[in-house]
Amino acid sequence: MSESYDLVVIGAGPAGESAAVTAALLGKRVAVVEKAAQPGGAAVNTGTVPSKTLRETALALSGLRSRNLHGVDLSLRRGTTVDDLVRHERTVRTGEQTRIRESFAHHGITLIPGRGEFDDPNTVRVHTADGSSRPIRGESIVIAIGSVPVRPPGIPFDHARIHDSDELLDIHEMPESIAVVGAGVIGSEYACMFASLGVPTYLVDGRDRLLPFLDAELSAALLVEMERLGVRFVWKENVVSCPDPGEGKVRLTLSSGTRLEVDHALICAGRMCRTPELKLDRAGITTCEKGRIPVNAQFQTVVPHIYAVGDVIGFPALASTSAEQGRAAVSHRYDCEFGNCPVATVLPSGIYTIPELSSAGATEEELKKQNVDYVVGRARYEDVPRGKIIGDKTGFLKLLFDRASRKLLGVHVIGELATEVVHIGVVTLMAEGRAELLLRTCFNYPTLGELYKHATLDAVNTAWRT
Amino acid sequence: MSESYDLVVIGAGPAGESAAVTAALLGKRVAVVEKAAQPGGAAVNTGTVPSKTLRETALALSGLRSRNLHGVDLSLRRGTTVDDLVRHERTVRTGEQTRIRESFAHHGITLIPGRGEFDDPNTVRVHTADGSSRPIRGESIVIAIGSVPVRPPGIPFDHARIHDSDELLDIHEMPESIAVVGAGVIGSEYACMFASLGVPTYLVDGRDRLLPFLDAELSAALLVEMERLGVRFVWKENVVSCPDPGEGKVRLTLSSGTRLEVDHALICAGRMCRTPELKLDRAGITTCEKGRIPVNAQFQTVVPHIYAVGDVIGFPALASTSAEQGRAAVSHRYDCEFGNCPVATVLPSGIYTIPELSSAGATEEELKKQNVDYVVGRARYEDVPRGKIIGDKTGFLKLLFDRASRKLLGVHVIGELATEVVHIGVVTLMAEGRAELLLRTCFNYPTLGELYKHATLDAVNTAWRT
Repeated sequence: MSESYDLVVIGAGPAGESAAVTAALLGKRVAVVEKAAQPGGAAVNTGTVPSKTLRETALALSGLRSRNLHGVDLSLRRGTTVDDLVRHERTVRTGEQTRIRESFAHHGITLIPGRGEFDDPNTVRVHTADGSSRPIRGESIVIAIGSVPVRPPGIPFDHARIHDSDELLDIHEMPESIAVVGAGVIGSEYACMFASLGVPTYLVDGRDRLLPFLDAELSAALLVEMERLGVRFVWKENVVSCPDPGEGKVRLTLSSGTRLEVDHALICAGRMCRTPELKLDRAGITTCEKGRIPVNAQFQTVVPHIYAVGDVIGFPALASTSAEQGRAAVSHRYDCEFGNCPVATVLPSGIYTIPELSSAGATEEELKKQNVDYVVGRARYEDVPRGKIIGDKTGFLKLLFDRASRKLLGVHVIGELATEVVHIGVVTLMAEGRAELLLRTCFNYPTLGELYKHATLDAVNTAWRT
Repeated sequence: MSESYDLVVIGAGPAGESAAVTAALLGKRVAVVEKAAQPGGAAVNTGTVPSKTLRETALALSGLRSRNLHGVDLSLRRGTTVDDLVRHERTVRTGEQTRIRESFAHHGITLIPGRGEFDDPNTVRVHTADGSSRPIRGESIVIAIGSVPVRPPGIPFDHARIHDSDELLDIHEMPESIAVVGAGVIGSEYACMFASLGVPTYLVDGRDRLLPFLDAELSAALLVEMERLGVRFVWKENVVSCPDPGEGKVRLTLSSGTRLEVDHALICAGRMCRTPELKLDRAGITTCEKGRIPVNAQFQTVVPHIYAVGDVIGFPALASTSAEQGRAAVSHRYDCEFGNCPVATVLPSGIYTIPELSSAGATEEELKKQNVDYVVGRARYEDVPRGKIIGDKTGFLKLLFDRASRKLLGVHVIGELATEVVHIGVVTLMAEGRAELLLRTCFNYPTLGELYKHATLDAVNTAWRT
């Protein structure tokens, strides 16, 4: 007789962890199948947390935050070594892995190492490292296997100085120069990090606008700041060839015929799902484009007791939203009073470029398309004392209100701590708050929170005061 | 004929600025009378912003934030000079003064230098530096003169190494050691700053509990952290004598007979109002204890067209709340549609010790006294990835919910950026949000905002899950 659980979760990233813990708290017997040596998924092991930790270290080592601020040069580490750069990242990563293992143990969740595939709609076969396999039975199943970087053909990824975004973490030397190919979120974040450390950095992209999904004003401001940081943009160019460089420079030939010679190359060509290895056909599930699994609003696949959450269902594919999906799916499955509500419609996005950006709700472009009559309120970091204290001369907050109802519709921030500052707006959006709420709210002084009051006053004064 | 305005504001601190700008936006002719050479009041010139800027510089120079975090010692400035410490503060202060002057100019507000006193209920006489005086007529008047440090008798404040909190900013050397007398907010903040710079620091107080108005759990946690930082607490002691030290050490004799020998002393004995200089009797206004001016809920004095806001009316006497009062008073006076609503009942307090603290809503002690059945949810900074990235091993968030309605009642944070992190809770309190709101809200990953979700889950799991 095979092992049997109420719930089997495939994948121990944020989506899987959240699903497993929610089910365990509801008293269910839960197993989590994980292929990697450690739990945490891309969020902890190869993507989100590592890149943000490296960014934090780069900011500390470069002295960028306090440069020119306190009258003394704190950038004692222009010659930062790669060991300096990665040491703290290793600590944080190990800490998070331990936290997840302890949480699983605490909640009585069984962590099963191995690669899972379907035998049938209720059986996950786990292939372990020693070549053996065994079936695990689950009354319900949550698929949360995440995604991996796309590796375009013709790029010699085996070479030690040519990386995808996962493997970059094992970098063994500080690049003398680097070309980042693909100016999406991941590419832009890493380009900023290397540029902040003084590494000559090229950012190559086939398009000609930075992060086009952003509010245009923020995208334009980010472009200026990244150029000031030293990032050299190479627009409307794709890589057409990248031969194995051997001991020499990496030579990228671009679509225009231009050549780029650099020490290292980082290829950020998006992420894809490894759904084929799940043998989904045996469960009666068909995938759609890019191997994604179609689900309904409750994250059920066509097989009602099999759910899919996280990167494997596509947009937005963020650690934060994936964890929410895991919670929502399990709450739906067990009809749990608490949290059995649809996933929030307000999904903030945080981009850890230098400076940071964060948005929630609608952009101006979206409101124009929808013919919404809106009012803009802006506040610059420089206009509040806290902005002066931290010396952020370029950051700003932009709020979008509905003109008639004065309801907040969108919040967009660029500047230090933007990913935290946005949350005041996120909660206001969730509570369907109006301009009056932000106007009346008392913020600590001096804080960046005051930006909300200033930006709301700006909207009031420009639009509603007659 | 004397100069005449719709509104005369006495004092150009946060309360006066906010009152003046609000009135100007409503189309009123406004004059602001300010005794000091520069606008901004204690918030900008002697108190809030300067002390927070010095703290920020101290954190940067001491390398405290990143010490032991990135594997390299960034504290290159153990021998910080006083010039290093104050340079950025001067820049920030000047910047804020300029901002206020520009804002006044932009809004057509007349800034009148000089000390104001009442001639009659509609006339403020302005005494200028050259010894002359002239009357200014105001149809309405807002009193916002702020407060000054109390100087207990018997302390030789004229000595260059004995300071009150205003005058400390003109310090001309880094103390070899310092005694801070009075462990209130100001004293505790400065004690942390000096200790972070490696200055041997004593904190003397007649009581035996740190900041007793705080939630007891936070107060206890702060005590541990301040001791770890090197602050030496001297409880249940008052200063009974402090003779002029001449060229020698400052010698404090304490109530127990103990002597404390230090290089510098900072006396933080609370703040008081300078209302006598206003000659309020000529306007028909009587003051109450500590020279405070009694007002109703709309900030009117007994004379309906004379309002009083800010420190001069007493608690809470914070820059943030004072600005709110200024806005509310003027909105009431002119019956303005926007913002004509009572001042918010949710008043966060931010304390810039090391670590930071911030609270809004009820404490556990208050809820117990009121016999409210509440549920506690906690999350440690260490439990979220962002906390690990910044290396805050002791910070935590504590949420208090009403058990029956699940409404948020109180939020208490200690740790890095606590004064910003609290705002998520402040907006939730303002919107009368319940646990479900925080549970459903999607926070950027990795951020400190996630603490709210973790703390809410903690409350759910300990109390409402059966």
